[in-house]
Amino acid sequence: MDAIDVIVTKRDGRELSAEQIDWVVDAYTRGEVADEQMSALAMAILLNGMGRAEIGRWTEAMIRSGTRMDWSSLDRPTTDKHSTGGVGDKITLPLAPLVAACGGYVPQLSGRGLGHTGGTLDKLESIRGWRASLSGEEMLGVLREAGAVICAAGEGLAPADKKLYALRDVTGTVESIPLIASSIMSKKIAEGTGALVLDVKVGSGAFMKDAGAARELARTMVELGTDHGVTTVALLTAMDRPLGLAVGNALEVAESVEVLAGGGPADVVELTVRLAREMLAAAGLSGKDPADALADGSAMDAWRRMIAAQGGDPDAPLPVAAETAEVTAPATGVLSRLDAYRVGLAAWRLGAGRARKEDAVSFGAGITLHARPGDAVREGQRLMTLHADDAERFPRALAALDNAYEVGEAADPALLPLVIDKITA
Amino acid sequence: MDAIDVIVTKRDGRELSAEQIDWVVDAYTRGEVADEQMSALAMAILLNGMGRAEIGRWTEAMIRSGTRMDWSSLDRPTTDKHSTGGVGDKITLPLAPLVAACGGYVPQLSGRGLGHTGGTLDKLESIRGWRASLSGEEMLGVLREAGAVICAAGEGLAPADKKLYALRDVTGTVESIPLIASSIMSKKIAEGTGALVLDVKVGSGAFMKDAGAARELARTMVELGTDHGVTTVALLTAMDRPLGLAVGNALEVAESVEVLAGGGPADVVELTVRLAREMLAAAGLSGKDPADALADGSAMDAWRRMIAAQGGDPDAPLPVAAETAEVTAPATGVLSRLDAYRVGLAAWRLGAGRARKEDAVSFGAGITLHARPGDAVREGQRLMTLHADDAERFPRALAALDNAYEVGEAADPALLPLVIDKITA
Repeated sequence: MDAIDVIVTKRDGRELSAEQIDWVVDAYTRGEVADEQMSALAMAILLNGMGRAEIGRWTEAMIRSGTRMDWSSLDRPTTDKHSTGGVGDKITLPLAPLVAACGGYVPQLSGRGLGHTGGTLDKLESIRGWRASLSGEEMLGVLREAGAVICAAGEGLAPADKKLYALRDVTGTVESIPLIASSIMSKKIAEGTGALVLDVKVGSGAFMKDAGAARELARTMVELGTDHGVTTVALLTAMDRPLGLAVGNALEVAESVEVLAGGGPADVVELTVRLAREMLAAAGLSGKDPADALADGSAMDAWRRMIAAQGGDPDAPLPVAAETAEVTAPATGVLSRLDAYRVGLAAWRLGAGRARKEDAVSFGAGITLHARPGDAVREGQRLMTLHADDAERFPRALAALDNAYEVGEAADPALLPLVIDKITA
Repeated sequence: MDAIDVIVTKRDGRELSAEQIDWVVDAYTRGEVADEQMSALAMAILLNGMGRAEIGRWTEAMIRSGTRMDWSSLDRPTTDKHSTGGVGDKITLPLAPLVAACGGYVPQLSGRGLGHTGGTLDKLESIRGWRASLSGEEMLGVLREAGAVICAAGEGLAPADKKLYALRDVTGTVESIPLIASSIMSKKIAEGTGALVLDVKVGSGAFMKDAGAARELARTMVELGTDHGVTTVALLTAMDRPLGLAVGNALEVAESVEVLAGGGPADVVELTVRLAREMLAAAGLSGKDPADALADGSAMDAWRRMIAAQGGDPDAPLPVAAETAEVTAPATGVLSRLDAYRVGLAAWRLGAGRARKEDAVSFGAGITLHARPGDAVREGQRLMTLHADDAERFPRALAALDNAYEVGEAADPALLPLVIDKITA
């Protein structure tokens, strides 16, 4: 096998053979195929695409580059969720314990934020004592104790994907549906979950800005999961405006706890319950309904057990940023539009996200929304509160919010429905 | 400027701005843009193309990465030729002194062979004492003394192209017309010639197998030369069969000397004279006709001066390979076909070419043809003599010649005319 032959095959629009895929993914992981060769191949894949069989084999090769976790010793099915990421998307936090409270096991390997979207691990680390890094044995222990675990993926999980993702990040080859789908699914399949619900976000604050591309990504991932024996469904959901009223690490934890306590913003509650039902259905579980588990406190109990089992103190006060600033309504009317991307960008600039992988996040930084698209507002009323550790961050965050919102006569009719579509195998 | 922005621009099919091109070529040469970024960009250029303005700017940026030579101190015009390479293509050897004998100055920077095609410098190095490496001052001295100089390009000439070419070679991004054209023309323009004739080869033994792609490459290079003030024309010429009767370093020198002595195979003479006339016309020179300079010995005199001025002994015996093997005609009839690529591959395997850049070539190795397509042959007659330093090389060379030739009733009517077309600005 020769790297140039593999590159030229895809460059010339032909299908990669199973042998070519197995070899190139393995040789790249071992360092035999050089970064400059893999980036040329990634660009050829981005521009010429891959068919279903190729994507499947590519995903398989990335899974086989590391270990695949095994939860068969558990007495009930495993089920998980993956979101493609958005602004204010804290759904995993209430969702995992909620599904656990309804009889599922949720073994979630999660990530950190980069750019304008937050990361689940960053959010949970704002809870005093909580640890993201667990061994496989510790994961199993937390699962048995709480029914749900959320932690970082270990080094041994799909190392080919780790290496390839870092390369794609610097070579303009991120935006390839076959490469995105195989990256996400290789990790989720290696994670060992038996069922998977994908929350594919659509809109300005999402990775996929338009519904067509999001739908294709969702369909590709559903096919990949199904082909690998994981019952997989996908929801396309709105990310044209932020989800909920809190954007930022500790702010989102607080909102998640509100939801678990039976309150919280309607959209967060609706999506959490909908995803929980999908996860339970995908796993073939038909016990307690998630809405009941929120109402009777059993989801909150599971949350407290899960946080405590990972060293966290669920009763500790959450970090609060030292400085605040307000954005007020420029007129009386209806908040017609609130752009998710710009709110995410502002939160990032306030310190909630990181500019480089090695940066630390500010747990208290972020944005609290006081109105959502469709809400009536009065001139001078607070629309948002900005939180930062340092007031010097406000001007650039406020600049990001220029044109991020509009007050008009009614909500923008182009606003997406919260759940746009469901894609099944 | 950011490498990812430049890559994404071309990836998404948009035109690179002059600023983007200037920056990325310069930053790559300095090592600020990484190999894996440039290879992704090269693949995007290969698949999405570049327009005339982009190719021009890219070429300009590669020229500006190094020095541009200046021959304005000479009293007559400079004119040069570049061939895209073929099997048995020794034309530069008789051509440069021939044009010098007719009043032009030929300042040729040339290359080495790689793969199945030979390199002019390798051929000339089979002459005892001849030196390929000259300083700029030495080049000028040889030009003044002999009217022609053939030597290796110094380190300072288009260093961006050197680095990019080595990268393309290992990343499947060689076969891009914009990148090939800018690579060739950046070196030829930096070489400082006032006029340039391109010999773009077409057929199995050429880099461009079909006339359409060859024509596009020729047109692109003619535009580039013209846009940079170099009078440029191109000929499309046949490389479906070998050129002349000799393939291999010293064998081709001997054939070149035959041509300079007024003899030699008809196709080599015809193409040499035609290219010489084009070079003189492009430089605005209308003195002695090249056919006369071959007949009266003045071209041979220029050859001897040129070789001697670079330390070579034009009278030294040429290296001869120790071993020979014969290929004979399988039937009586007409040699209908003789495939250039397979003959070149056989000569390469005999030792005339190098497998890796750092390998040495065998000067005596190669193939002598005893018949050309269209010639009548008798069963058992010699068709080719193979030359190698070691008889162990024969089996693999003979295997390359399987299906390389056919004896039938007449020459294949699909054989290309020697000169297929001429392309001017």
